[in-house]
Amino acid sequence: MARWFRLENALALLLVFVPITIALKFVFGVVGTPIFVCAGIAIIPLAGYMGRATERLAEHVGAGLGGLLNATFGNAAELIIAGFALQAGLQGVVKASLTGSIIGNILLVFGMGALLGGIRHPVQRFNRTAATLGTTLLVLSVIGLVIPAIFHAVAEVSPGTEFTLSRNIAIVLMATYVLSLVFSLRTHSHLYLGGDSEAPADGSSAKAALILLVASAAVVGLMSEMLVGSVEAAAEDLGMSEVFVGVILVALVGNAAEHSTVVLMAIKNKMDLAVNIAIGSSMQIALFVAPLLVFLSYFVGPAPMDLVFTPFEVVAVGLSVGIMTLISLDGESHWMEGVQLLAVYVMLAMGFWFLPA
Amino acid sequence: MARWFRLENALALLLVFVPITIALKFVFGVVGTPIFVCAGIAIIPLAGYMGRATERLAEHVGAGLGGLLNATFGNAAELIIAGFALQAGLQGVVKASLTGSIIGNILLVFGMGALLGGIRHPVQRFNRTAATLGTTLLVLSVIGLVIPAIFHAVAEVSPGTEFTLSRNIAIVLMATYVLSLVFSLRTHSHLYLGGDSEAPADGSSAKAALILLVASAAVVGLMSEMLVGSVEAAAEDLGMSEVFVGVILVALVGNAAEHSTVVLMAIKNKMDLAVNIAIGSSMQIALFVAPLLVFLSYFVGPAPMDLVFTPFEVVAVGLSVGIMTLISLDGESHWMEGVQLLAVYVMLAMGFWFLPA
Amino acid sequence: MARWFRLENALALLLVFVPITIALKFVFGVVGTPIFVCAGIAIIPLAGYMGRATERLAEHVGAGLGGLLNATFGNAAELIIAGFALQAGLQGVVKASLTGSIIGNILLVFGMGALLGGIRHPVQRFNRTAATLGTTLLVLSVIGLVIPAIFHAVAEVSPGTEFTLSRNIAIVLMATYVLSLVFSLRTHSHLYLGGDSEAPADGSSAKAALILLVASAAVVGLMSEMLVGSVEAAAEDLGMSEVFVGVILVALVGNAAEHSTVVLMAIKNKMDLAVNIAIGSSMQIALFVAPLLVFLSYFVGPAPMDLVFTPFEVVAVGLSVGIMTLISLDGESHWMEGVQLLAVYVMLAMGFWFLPA
Repeated sequence: MARWFRLENALALLLVFVPITIALKFVFGVVGTPIFVCAGIAIIPLAGYMGRATERLAEHVGAGLGGLLNATFGNAAELIIAGFALQAGLQGVVKASLTGSIIGNILLVFGMGALLGGIRHPVQRFNRTAATLGTTLLVLSVIGLVIPAIFHAVAEVSPGTEFTLSRNIAIVLMATYVLSLVFSLRTHSHLYLGGDSEAPADGSSAKAALILLVASAAVVGLMSEMLVGSVEAAAEDLGMSEVFVGVILVALVGNAAEHSTVVLMAIKNKMDLAVNIAIGSSMQIALFVAPLLVFLSYFVGPAPMDLVFTPFEVVAVGLSVGIMTLISLDGESHWMEGVQLLAVYVMLAMGFWFLPA
Repeated sequence: MARWFRLENALALLLVFVPITIALKFVFGVVGTPIFVCAGIAIIPLAGYMGRATERLAEHVGAGLGGLLNATFGNAAELIIAGFALQAGLQGVVKASLTGSIIGNILLVFGMGALLGGIRHPVQRFNRTAATLGTTLLVLSVIGLVIPAIFHAVAEVSPGTEFTLSRNIAIVLMATYVLSLVFSLRTHSHLYLGGDSEAPADGSSAKAALILLVASAAVVGLMSEMLVGSVEAAAEDLGMSEVFVGVILVALVGNAAEHSTVVLMAIKNKMDLAVNIAIGSSMQIALFVAPLLVFLSYFVGPAPMDLVFTPFEVVAVGLSVGIMTLISLDGESHWMEGVQLLAVYVMLAMGFWFLPA
Repeated sequence: MARWFRLENALALLLVFVPITIALKFVFGVVGTPIFVCAGIAIIPLAGYMGRATERLAEHVGAGLGGLLNATFGNAAELIIAGFALQAGLQGVVKASLTGSIIGNILLVFGMGALLGGIRHPVQRFNRTAATLGTTLLVLSVIGLVIPAIFHAVAEVSPGTEFTLSRNIAIVLMATYVLSLVFSLRTHSHLYLGGDSEAPADGSSAKAALILLVASAAVVGLMSEMLVGSVEAAAEDLGMSEVFVGVILVALVGNAAEHSTVVLMAIKNKMDLAVNIAIGSSMQIALFVAPLLVFLSYFVGPAPMDLVFTPFEVVAVGLSVGIMTLISLDGESHWMEGVQLLAVYVMLAMGFWFLPA
């Protein structure tokens, strides 16, 4: 534990980037890459605080609802960033960051958890039924992405048809998500509780955690607006495509909370919580955040957004969900499974790197 | 049970559409949409009778052979309809109705069964080995569809080559089907018996059931010819593509028998029978009916039929089989799995709806 | 056992093709198809000897390392053949033989093993965790093949970019392979030992086996050079595309060792060994031999080789790995699973047959 608290202290130092970013922008009038980098770094500890605040709230409600809470507020950072990108008309970046969050949570975040947890524990076990429900919902969302992409590729239809199809699919995904909450919180909540519930809360009250959560979210919002405002300039400066920036960098920043929580839980051998957060977070991005952004796009930003992702994005999500499904089927993980997930992440990142802008 | 008998009585009322259809066509000379609608409605109770007759026959032979019998005669309606469409040269409709039957039986029929059964029973169990054999055979048939489609997409070959390839693949699929019968009825029949065999037959003899079956099939044939003869006019009137009519409407009519049987069995918690019928029916369409129609096309109808399905049809079948495989792997189902299968069905139906004619 | 020793004696007779090939080429100056056929036949018993020598070595080290040894030296023949093809600039044949080896080992070799073993034993069991690790690594390698293929299809990038991407992916695949050896031989070797270790060695020493292995490899090298030198002429004479020759014929010759060993083990109901060899061999081709050939291509042969396989090759490998994964998930096999794997092999072979050159 001691090592992790030290890591937290180190992360707390990154908070200094909040005033730095503000000063750079509003005092010195700096734009572009420096703002992008500083705002991105500033979000990392904030997302971390949102994660810890959520973890404390979760300690009051058990592993199942706790995992859900963790995923929700981890994804609040995502939603805030994507919302600002939508408003700025950067739909390519929005879709790239959604793609990056879905594949990042299962490949990078859970991969790292399974690797580091697996080094300490030869075999780690988790509830198969809950994991399978999560991966099946991910498969469902892949189907929701494949349909508009195939449509776009093979059918000569008007953009209007693609928007209508996307919106209808978004409704189905959102409805499925709501029903999955009924399943996991009501009718089959026993699958998500029990197992590895946390030790008693460390003294801090639910109220203090809630205040921390709300305050962090507000600052994340401020930083996100600056991050998004500088993404185009930064991509050009860094010689990366906007898609790479969205899939890898933005998603990395947005998933920092899940990342530290999942690794911590995996090392503590609380794999049910680790799996719930990682798969649950990807699933929530796909079934809740993505449809929500489609709906929001009719009110925020210059134009409505469809669900037509690029072929490479669709394939990346499909392959990631496929290998995660396979790995979680037996309800066990070991370090080599972590290696495999990370290897897929690296290969996909290389693909996005070389993809022309 | 009482509620279901009432449902059956309601269905029996639909039989009035048999004389109505005949009268409309031969007395009043009506053509097009009214004939399509009336013939379609008339087939529903008839397919239901074929289902019940088969169910009674099945009661004499146990769950395994019973499931097979159910699937066979449920698919007799499909085969009759598709045969008339083939004769009329409507190969697009034939392929669409095959696609619709394969995805309809696993997504709509089993999805509805798992949902309604799952509302009464928190977890429903079935024999994993038998289910896995069925889904693996479905994967095999998907491979049989993917090969000609990829060929058509990437290789510049003559139509003659595509026919030869399709016929050879049809032979492999049919041979695999025959061997799977040897497996399920001879060498490993114990996997299909036992479990949830029905209560003793309700007094009606096997002979009476057989007569009902044959009589229903004959009337289904008559109605099918009229249904197929009006499909083009109906599609135009209703503003739907022929493919949508084939995938959704014709398949719905053809699968009515499986639909009511599977839902009834699922509610009674006889999941082995429900799974055998749903998966078995899809599998039989893919491995037996589709190849048989390819062979028949050399004798019936204006031109031979290949196995080149449209990209969206291939993807739809592939995705449906994929999610069904995943859901059946653990030998358990719950209501949320039903929701997921239905959600995929709705999304695919929306895709077929918006697909240009 | 007696029957198999007789088969071995019959195979030994094929050794006569070694001097025949040499005489045809160097004494009578024959080229083309006769050399291709004779060299191919000569490799079969040699690969068989390499297999038996390896099996004997394996008897000294247990099932896990033994399976690995078997796969390594079975694939030595592959590597030797592919290396000569690379040197001759026949990159299409190299890729085709890699494709053919990957699909051949899981579909043809394991399919035949499961069928013949399953006829004697109603259900055969093997270690799920080891099999799943193997198939997951195969899925990983499929991802490694899909990325450059998608890239080639959708992104307009320079060939230079494709080479760089391929080389980077090759590094990831190779690194994953090395780590998988650490897993299977060090940290989790207990998963691979135990179970069905062989009977005590039949008297022959490890040293004699090693000498047999090295001598066989040398002659395989000589025959491979002649085989590769005549592949173009033979393809034209036989009316086959080079790809078909590579995927089916060359791969068949190269996998003869695994083929006889896997079938023998399956009949003896030593399924852990059979599965380890079949899946391990495919996996090693994909994660070790393919990357190694990419690296070698910078030193051997006229031009570097990328990992851009043809769409049909990528789909064939993807489908084969998919159905093998599904079949091995439950840790059991029966004869019908063998039939299904063989049916997929036949359908894919038909596809490669009709594919234009």
